Amino acid sequence: METRQAERVRASFGRQGLLQAIGATLIDVRPGSVTIELCPGPSNRQQHGYVHVGAVSAIADTAAGYAAQTLMPEDRTVLTTEFKINLLAPAVGERLVATGEVVKAGRTLTVAQAKVYAISGETRKLVALLTATLIAVDHAED
Amino acid sequence: METRQAERVRASFGRQGLLQAIGATLIDVRPGSVTIELCPGPSNRQQHGYVHVGAVSAIADTAAGYAAQTLMPEDRTVLTTEFKINLLAPAVGERLVATGEVVKAGRTLTVAQAKVYAISGETRKLVALLTATLIAVDHAED
Amino acid sequence: METRQAERVRASFGRQGLLQAIGATLIDVRPGSVTIELCPGPSNRQQHGYVHVGAVSAIADTAAGYAAQTLMPEDRTVLTTEFKINLLAPAVGERLVATGEVVKAGRTLTVAQAKVYAISGETRKLVALLTATLIAVDHAED
Amino acid sequence: METRQAERVRASFGRQGLLQAIGATLIDVRPGSVTIELCPGPSNRQQHGYVHVGAVSAIADTAAGYAAQTLMPEDRTVLTTEFKINLLAPAVGERLVATGEVVKAGRTLTVAQAKVYAISGETRKLVALLTATLIAVDHAED
Repeated sequence: METRQAERVRASFGRQGLLQAIGATLIDVRPGSVTIELCPGPSNRQQHGYVHVGAVSAIADTAAGYAAQTLMPEDRTVLTTEFKINLLAPAVGERLVATGEVVKAGRTLTVAQAKVYAISGETRKLVALLTATLIAVDHAED
Repeated sequence: METRQAERVRASFGRQGLLQAIGATLIDVRPGSVTIELCPGPSNRQQHGYVHVGAVSAIADTAAGYAAQTLMPEDRTVLTTEFKINLLAPAVGERLVATGEVVKAGRTLTVAQAKVYAISGETRKLVALLTATLIAVDHAED
Repeated sequence: METRQAERVRASFGRQGLLQAIGATLIDVRPGSVTIELCPGPSNRQQHGYVHVGAVSAIADTAAGYAAQTLMPEDRTVLTTEFKINLLAPAVGERLVATGEVVKAGRTLTVAQAKVYAISGETRKLVALLTATLIAVDHAED
Repeated sequence: METRQAERVRASFGRQGLLQAIGATLIDVRPGSVTIELCPGPSNRQQHGYVHVGAVSAIADTAAGYAAQTLMPEDRTVLTTEFKINLLAPAVGERLVATGEVVKAGRTLTVAQAKVYAISGETRKLVALLTATLIAVDHAED
């Protein structure tokens, strides 16, 4: 049975049009840690056939943001105020898996990191590393 | 009549599946400066109805990258090695306009910035500021 | 005659031990813009004789932070929550000049940029570009 | 007995005027990991008595850079091209300890992270997280 926070993240994820458009899937939600998967395909590619930096950023930022949100009270949500991402290797493979983890949870600001791995068969390669600052805001629904 | 570099950017842009999926349009290509537009819609939204940070990042990073590419020799292309983006205001409006400009062109590394404005009628608001490092690589085609 | 905000920045600057240790000087304070100068010397060098990235960061971050502070009410001060800096060219020359400017002032968060130029005689070269997020906090004195 | 790479880092560290001026000490050098310590004092403080962000950045960037250098051939050294640092808590305590670790080593670019902890007695608190991109260059000496 899922926690209330995990249900909330799942419902919110389903309302994110961009994530549907690029084919992202929510894989796992735990307190302080969220995982999102993306299969490379026509709707997330750039001109050389790799996954577009924008799509890699989208899943990494979303994983980091939801990781932060799982540690928030129910009447608060988070917005990304800034992030930095390093692209470490071409984003190719059967699937990309982004896991966001909270580095420091705060009342106003939370810092989270996400690592994105490209997975093909038995091999797993780190392709991106993101660090984000999230700000807590009041909300009606996510 | 367009320059050879502008034609090359246009052809490359058309092969970027992600940019088509989210509805981005290439508006302007000049030496060291490229502009991309995005109209908010279902395929680029997040859960609160704003344009998703991933989509804002995609047009900003692409504008910065192509700005760098316009200053490269024909046998070279660029890859983003890292970027940082600050989200300054909610990305809402009739359209978003991202303009990338080269800050420092180098043989190996080029640094470029992109500003993203939200435009509604006569009002124009800065919603994001991105700084990217691009690396020059050999290429067959973009 | 200086404004109250400029006096406040000047008094605060004088209490910054690190800035004295590395030889930084406060040059100019205006609403939303602050300039700091550093002459390369033994106390701010790295192993190749350039100014150390830490010293370049110190003057750039301080210029950005004070630029943000000039736009704050008297009972508020700012702390840097994060910054990103690109080193664009070796920091050598007769002097380095860092100017911080506010990009977006907010009640809680302010984003500012600083550009650092190396100046030798008539030549001026951009050597670093910093983007910082500052958070407003209550204070007794700066 | 130290490795050749550790000796090289030690000799280089001793030539860094800024690090002497702020009171930094090289603690540990291993392949892909370097640790630097700083005791808070007058030469590294800002106006509120915390360690200055510039000093925190200096030890974090230096630890990350030397970590990258330990994995380089002897005829190559590294320069920081950019970094991003998040300040997670006020830098106060008996001493600050920065450890840099290589995230991805490359022929041209290496990405490294550094974590800075404030240590007081038995307590250890993460106060800063830095991610840097280093570029390999030829060198005579470090």
